[in-house]
Amino acid sequence: MGEWREECAVFGIFGADRASELAQLGLYALQHRGQESCGIVSVHDGRFFVEKGIGLVADVMTPERLAKLPGRQAIGHNRYSTTGGLNLTNTQPLTASIRGEEVAIAHNGNLVNARLIRRRLEENGSLFQTSLDTEVFLHLLAQGEGDFEQRLLAACGEVQGAYSLVLQTDRAVYGLRDPNGWRPLVLGQLETGAHVLASESCALDLLGARVLGEVQAGELVRLDAKGVTRRPFLPSAPLKQCLFEHVYFSRPDSVVFGETVDRVRRRLGRRLADEQPADADVVISVPDSSNSIALGYAEQSGIAYELGLIRNHYVGRTFIHPTQAVRDHSVRVKFNAVEAALAGRRVVMVDDSIVRGTTSRKLVALVRKAGAREVHFRVGSPPVAFPCFYGIDTPSRAELIGARLDLEEIRAFLDVDSIGYLSLEGMKACESRPDTWCDACWSGRYPIPPEPTAAKLSLEGPRLWGPTRSA
Amino acid sequence: MGEWREECAVFGIFGADRASELAQLGLYALQHRGQESCGIVSVHDGRFFVEKGIGLVADVMTPERLAKLPGRQAIGHNRYSTTGGLNLTNTQPLTASIRGEEVAIAHNGNLVNARLIRRRLEENGSLFQTSLDTEVFLHLLAQGEGDFEQRLLAACGEVQGAYSLVLQTDRAVYGLRDPNGWRPLVLGQLETGAHVLASESCALDLLGARVLGEVQAGELVRLDAKGVTRRPFLPSAPLKQCLFEHVYFSRPDSVVFGETVDRVRRRLGRRLADEQPADADVVISVPDSSNSIALGYAEQSGIAYELGLIRNHYVGRTFIHPTQAVRDHSVRVKFNAVEAALAGRRVVMVDDSIVRGTTSRKLVALVRKAGAREVHFRVGSPPVAFPCFYGIDTPSRAELIGARLDLEEIRAFLDVDSIGYLSLEGMKACESRPDTWCDACWSGRYPIPPEPTAAKLSLEGPRLWGPTRSA
Amino acid sequence: MGEWREECAVFGIFGADRASELAQLGLYALQHRGQESCGIVSVHDGRFFVEKGIGLVADVMTPERLAKLPGRQAIGHNRYSTTGGLNLTNTQPLTASIRGEEVAIAHNGNLVNARLIRRRLEENGSLFQTSLDTEVFLHLLAQGEGDFEQRLLAACGEVQGAYSLVLQTDRAVYGLRDPNGWRPLVLGQLETGAHVLASESCALDLLGARVLGEVQAGELVRLDAKGVTRRPFLPSAPLKQCLFEHVYFSRPDSVVFGETVDRVRRRLGRRLADEQPADADVVISVPDSSNSIALGYAEQSGIAYELGLIRNHYVGRTFIHPTQAVRDHSVRVKFNAVEAALAGRRVVMVDDSIVRGTTSRKLVALVRKAGAREVHFRVGSPPVAFPCFYGIDTPSRAELIGARLDLEEIRAFLDVDSIGYLSLEGMKACESRPDTWCDACWSGRYPIPPEPTAAKLSLEGPRLWGPTRSA
Amino acid sequence: MGEWREECAVFGIFGADRASELAQLGLYALQHRGQESCGIVSVHDGRFFVEKGIGLVADVMTPERLAKLPGRQAIGHNRYSTTGGLNLTNTQPLTASIRGEEVAIAHNGNLVNARLIRRRLEENGSLFQTSLDTEVFLHLLAQGEGDFEQRLLAACGEVQGAYSLVLQTDRAVYGLRDPNGWRPLVLGQLETGAHVLASESCALDLLGARVLGEVQAGELVRLDAKGVTRRPFLPSAPLKQCLFEHVYFSRPDSVVFGETVDRVRRRLGRRLADEQPADADVVISVPDSSNSIALGYAEQSGIAYELGLIRNHYVGRTFIHPTQAVRDHSVRVKFNAVEAALAGRRVVMVDDSIVRGTTSRKLVALVRKAGAREVHFRVGSPPVAFPCFYGIDTPSRAELIGARLDLEEIRAFLDVDSIGYLSLEGMKACESRPDTWCDACWSGRYPIPPEPTAAKLSLEGPRLWGPTRSA
Repeated sequence: MGEWREECAVFGIFGADRASELAQLGLYALQHRGQESCGIVSVHDGRFFVEKGIGLVADVMTPERLAKLPGRQAIGHNRYSTTGGLNLTNTQPLTASIRGEEVAIAHNGNLVNARLIRRRLEENGSLFQTSLDTEVFLHLLAQGEGDFEQRLLAACGEVQGAYSLVLQTDRAVYGLRDPNGWRPLVLGQLETGAHVLASESCALDLLGARVLGEVQAGELVRLDAKGVTRRPFLPSAPLKQCLFEHVYFSRPDSVVFGETVDRVRRRLGRRLADEQPADADVVISVPDSSNSIALGYAEQSGIAYELGLIRNHYVGRTFIHPTQAVRDHSVRVKFNAVEAALAGRRVVMVDDSIVRGTTSRKLVALVRKAGAREVHFRVGSPPVAFPCFYGIDTPSRAELIGARLDLEEIRAFLDVDSIGYLSLEGMKACESRPDTWCDACWSGRYPIPPEPTAAKLSLEGPRLWGPTRSA
Repeated sequence: MGEWREECAVFGIFGADRASELAQLGLYALQHRGQESCGIVSVHDGRFFVEKGIGLVADVMTPERLAKLPGRQAIGHNRYSTTGGLNLTNTQPLTASIRGEEVAIAHNGNLVNARLIRRRLEENGSLFQTSLDTEVFLHLLAQGEGDFEQRLLAACGEVQGAYSLVLQTDRAVYGLRDPNGWRPLVLGQLETGAHVLASESCALDLLGARVLGEVQAGELVRLDAKGVTRRPFLPSAPLKQCLFEHVYFSRPDSVVFGETVDRVRRRLGRRLADEQPADADVVISVPDSSNSIALGYAEQSGIAYELGLIRNHYVGRTFIHPTQAVRDHSVRVKFNAVEAALAGRRVVMVDDSIVRGTTSRKLVALVRKAGAREVHFRVGSPPVAFPCFYGIDTPSRAELIGARLDLEEIRAFLDVDSIGYLSLEGMKACESRPDTWCDACWSGRYPIPPEPTAAKLSLEGPRLWGPTRSA
Repeated sequence: MGEWREECAVFGIFGADRASELAQLGLYALQHRGQESCGIVSVHDGRFFVEKGIGLVADVMTPERLAKLPGRQAIGHNRYSTTGGLNLTNTQPLTASIRGEEVAIAHNGNLVNARLIRRRLEENGSLFQTSLDTEVFLHLLAQGEGDFEQRLLAACGEVQGAYSLVLQTDRAVYGLRDPNGWRPLVLGQLETGAHVLASESCALDLLGARVLGEVQAGELVRLDAKGVTRRPFLPSAPLKQCLFEHVYFSRPDSVVFGETVDRVRRRLGRRLADEQPADADVVISVPDSSNSIALGYAEQSGIAYELGLIRNHYVGRTFIHPTQAVRDHSVRVKFNAVEAALAGRRVVMVDDSIVRGTTSRKLVALVRKAGAREVHFRVGSPPVAFPCFYGIDTPSRAELIGARLDLEEIRAFLDVDSIGYLSLEGMKACESRPDTWCDACWSGRYPIPPEPTAAKLSLEGPRLWGPTRSA
Repeated sequence: MGEWREECAVFGIFGADRASELAQLGLYALQHRGQESCGIVSVHDGRFFVEKGIGLVADVMTPERLAKLPGRQAIGHNRYSTTGGLNLTNTQPLTASIRGEEVAIAHNGNLVNARLIRRRLEENGSLFQTSLDTEVFLHLLAQGEGDFEQRLLAACGEVQGAYSLVLQTDRAVYGLRDPNGWRPLVLGQLETGAHVLASESCALDLLGARVLGEVQAGELVRLDAKGVTRRPFLPSAPLKQCLFEHVYFSRPDSVVFGETVDRVRRRLGRRLADEQPADADVVISVPDSSNSIALGYAEQSGIAYELGLIRNHYVGRTFIHPTQAVRDHSVRVKFNAVEAALAGRRVVMVDDSIVRGTTSRKLVALVRKAGAREVHFRVGSPPVAFPCFYGIDTPSRAELIGARLDLEEIRAFLDVDSIGYLSLEGMKACESRPDTWCDACWSGRYPIPPEPTAAKLSLEGPRLWGPTRSA
């Protein structure tokens, strides 16, 4: 339906009974960050156990499979859903035997120099078996000098871009974030004392774990039998946290980059009401991602909040096969308009962002068909005009409506009476630390420039390095 | 998690290309009324084609199975989810060969004299192959005099209780509602002219069908090559529409019993604010069924509405297997509390109803753990104290908290600072026709008394007539 | 590939721990009698438990499903594989509630007057839910007078045709054979004392059970807490045992109708060598069903026995989907010729029977391509020229090569140097009791004439009464 | 059940429409060489397509999956069945990106110095992702100098042991055999002109391909758009063909190492009759692998051949889950004895080899229980006393009955009246080239000594290098 796609969720746990069951729950809470596939690797008695599958966590991680994941330490990963081929080889965590030592790794983010490193490694005889940039870490780990941690830090010195990583050996679980801190990673502690790493705090909440705080940008956290060791591993760099995590990706109940997401979104909504007021009777949200922003808009503007669009609860969870009938009925499979709430009314319709605009246009048509007299579209972020190279699967520039059309053209395309985006300044003003953000997808100011090839490719289509595999 | 369970959704369509695909979409929109199993029966060239399965509509009705359901007429059915044995024999629609003519039937509701009729039929040599009360209709159809419709009306003259039925022969699709009109059934028309029957209007909306109105209580609707024929078939009886459809079962975007459900719930919330005010800082909903009521409460009371509880979108869609970890973390698998919205606040927590009270108690604990200073529990309907015999799968009286405890005991059990239910009068006052409702679950005034055995059983446990089957 | 299809296997057991696991093993030994679907019904504490599925016994009856079949008594059924739609509704055992008592039934054979009885019952209001003739038994049981056994015997007095039945109530397991004894049924006893009924003795062998002998034609055997009760239930009729059981259907290691099948087939082969000698260098079998006959032929003729055709072990077990490549390579998917055993040789090729002749023709071509100088086709039974109405799924007359062509035409069609069938007299002479056989498929002398419609239908195509269902 | 396990089958095809469908058929014909898993990699338009799965070829390679394998060239692989964990990561063909070029490889055989090479490579930074020795080839290919073929030949110069390989790039399919020629590999040509490589000729027969002959030991065959190029790649070494291929592994209809397997086995049986005569009434085979040997024995001795043991056709094809009942009934699930063929007789029981002896002992007990008066066990090969390091998965020495017990002890263990093995000289005398064989498993004379660790491990248990994975 044209939404942005996060690349992943990561999870790690050390020192807990039934570690793999807890990893499953953690991944379940993080399901929104990746719905294509999932995997868990546990360690027991020095041996690694791996279960991966295509599908949702609850479907893949059956009790039978969890029973095959013994041990008190585990890491896990969710991957986003692509429209193309499902691909078990590319699921994470990746595992490898490195100088006789087993290693597993789970990665959220995207490296900008992975192709260059890969080419160099291949020229020296390294053999790549997946098309994931994450595999670069494993090869660098296999080639460096010193012990595991020394090689890990050396590897981090070579790669550039976004990485919130969870790794494990048979003795420890590691978490680390790149020096710019693009993607979130939080550390928590269970009541039993065991430590947990997760992409968002909602995973810790589900386990009843206490949040100890974020893994800092450029920090390495080691969980082992002695407890937690934390240390910076790379010189500090300017924070470049992904502002889209607050706008769209993260769950509203999570604390991400030190802020409760729902609270930030409320402020975005209130600011949006100030920047882009509308003379209207009701405010409605495009559920569920825009609910907080729409409530903020309603609160600040004093306009009544209505449930004008209802989302089918079963959409997106089970995949409904695209028969002709499904295609014919398009967005109505996902949303329904409530005529009694809309008919004859002037409606403010609040969304968090617009990708291609095609879904928004169909939703506007639904709202109009339900009798809305006027539709004023309000967006809780600026127009997205540049692709992301740090872990979000954006369409190519040519498909981004914010890159293709000007404001009036967008208004006409959506067929609305007025359109208003929140300004970049306004958005940052809703944050307590306004200068710690990556805003490349709006501004085109890339903190670390992408590889030339990657930049080119992202304007053309999906990035595929290796063979098309399935299982 | 202790929710009420509706017994079913029904759907019928006549005269449309790809009728089974449209039936699938209709059932998909009605998934909330039954998640255990589903089935579609289509008719092509005088032959019946049947596909049924355990699971959600999107999972069961794959393109492969829809391709095996040719024809321009079809009926379909969703069934509720039981915790016990899945049971393919008992899925609907039921089919039978009656005097050389194929018949299929789908039923929403519950008959109160099915056992008596079944016993009489069995004594005369009839052979029952399922444990569904619906099968009684088929046997009565097999035994009466006259043509199909005459026998159908004769059958309706014998049975008592709740039935919104969709049937088909190889020439027509029929819809009918019992004279008291317990369960909803609406008639609509596609743009192509084909007619459609469905439990709720949201299924018609998805198909882009125009709502022609409700099938009236005691009315028989026949869809065939000539179009629609409607006629009353039993003398009028007092309307006894299920008020719980408005409070809990139906989708908020549906028009049910002539009212948009979201609108009724808003009025329930406003009335609740008047009847049961609270001195508080925020209003929160138990999502998603109570959202409309909570918004109404917030609006009327002037107290701010917050997203204090977030529901995991993947809950209830995929079944998460109850490992030990899942049991340990209980309601948190489903809901998370937003600390930033609750901490230090006095909270009005709005729910539509309370069944056993155990889930509510856990949610209150979650809200308190997130720092709520006070919790004032408000319920958009009176205490449920009597089992339903007309199509809702209520627990036995002994398990209903409204039957076991008085108000102060309930407050203490839930561990809240105050509790307030909406009155029965208040609830009816929110309806435009206050005297057309069945209120038996609150009042114990059963419009048609149940069979003695059924009444007894419902206090004891699940109703099982036949063998335990699966497939 | 043109083989005959047996309609079923039946199994019953009373008084054994893990009765359903033993039923599974029994059905596994009888898999050759039906590969489409299987089912087991067990009884525990007066309750019936049913598991059925499409597929082979080992695939369908998983430990999870067997665990849902508790109790010390069980019956089971295998059904043959049709090319058409798989059909869970039509799987056996059938179950019904008859006057408050649960009954399960499994049937091998075919009734000749089922349609007449069904029509009569339908006119009196009975409701048929499957398209199986077996369902007639259940309705007759529901309608008769007296206790269960009295009604069972009355039912047997009404039906005509072939039935080896296994039934159970919550107190007993019954086995019975029709008075003509078309289909086999044997009784055995486990070392633990529990009794067992099965279509063939190979199922008893697998369980380590002692064979107590056949259930006699017209005999009712009751297994219950008191042990075994046997009694004749219908006046004696001339034995009409299916001779094809000895020629083709039964496993060679089974004792069927009092004879070890392998021994009978050896005699058929020896007699065939006498009746239809050939001047040749080697004898080969069409494996595996003709192995015993071919060995008998080689032994009597003194011609060397060679493994000239090798059958792929995986054929028929797993279903290989008919891609274009599979169609192109046809019989070679199933059989390969051994050039070193055939090249330059004059070959006697022995088969048990010929259905349409198309497979035989392809096999002859394979043998010729491997270099055979001459091919002399020998068949261990006469030409099949009439359809069976007693439990074998024969093609229509128009498709039977023995009904369409004369001997020379068959020879020419198969492209062999000579052809020879065993005579009917010769075949019977290989049996110790030559006058106890049904030979209708060869002679057209039907012991009980079929219903007119059935006879007509069998010349036209598959017999289908009801809707096409699947699950 | 104690049988030897071959490690694999390989298949390759170049220049054919629907190459993957033909690969599927080829693997289907070679199913006996590996039943755990299978995989096919096709190439289309320079892209590689991979489908792998756990299970039999017919089950895994559905039309849906074959449709995802476009192109005119493909390679495939079957893997044997282990009792332990199923393991998708370790399935073949393996694929990798080597200096920007995709490569796929399928391997039959076992390298004896893989661990040493792997350790060296790991120390230089190579990263191993499977626990297969085959992966060593890929890494050597990634590291060598020169073009693909030069690096391939260099790799072959480093590895030692058994390898019949099929590889492909996006331009060619390669087949090659190690200089000792342990494992078979044949080359054939379809009627369309396309070329095919397969482990055994039976796969070519199924495709109607002409056998062009064996790939020679030390020969490299290249299939590409220009046709076939063949050239020796390593200096000649003494042939060490696996004699067990003739005794047990290969299909009887295959031509392997220049001989039809059935013919060799016949000669083994005749020689066995001469070397180890028996005074007996009947000869029986342990079906199906010993049929040819038993027929040879019967022919030479003049003793009648009987089908004394019948094998359940469904065994080994579908996996029957080991419930308690299955365990209780052990070998009877697989075999049944024919009492009428055995009772009162003196029986020669012919088997191809004995592994642990436990299955043989149970079969002897079955034969005795069926009434055999005497049992004379005859084996068509010498006692296996040493593990194989060249591609057969033998148990450790401690489990091999031929290594643990002397002849009289074996006789007593099996509880037979006499035992006789064929001599090594006798076995070789049945071959036309008696000096071209590896006889290490009987003689302990290893042509290339295994790595010390491997030798040690094989006495201890299964060889596992990496993590336990599944998918």
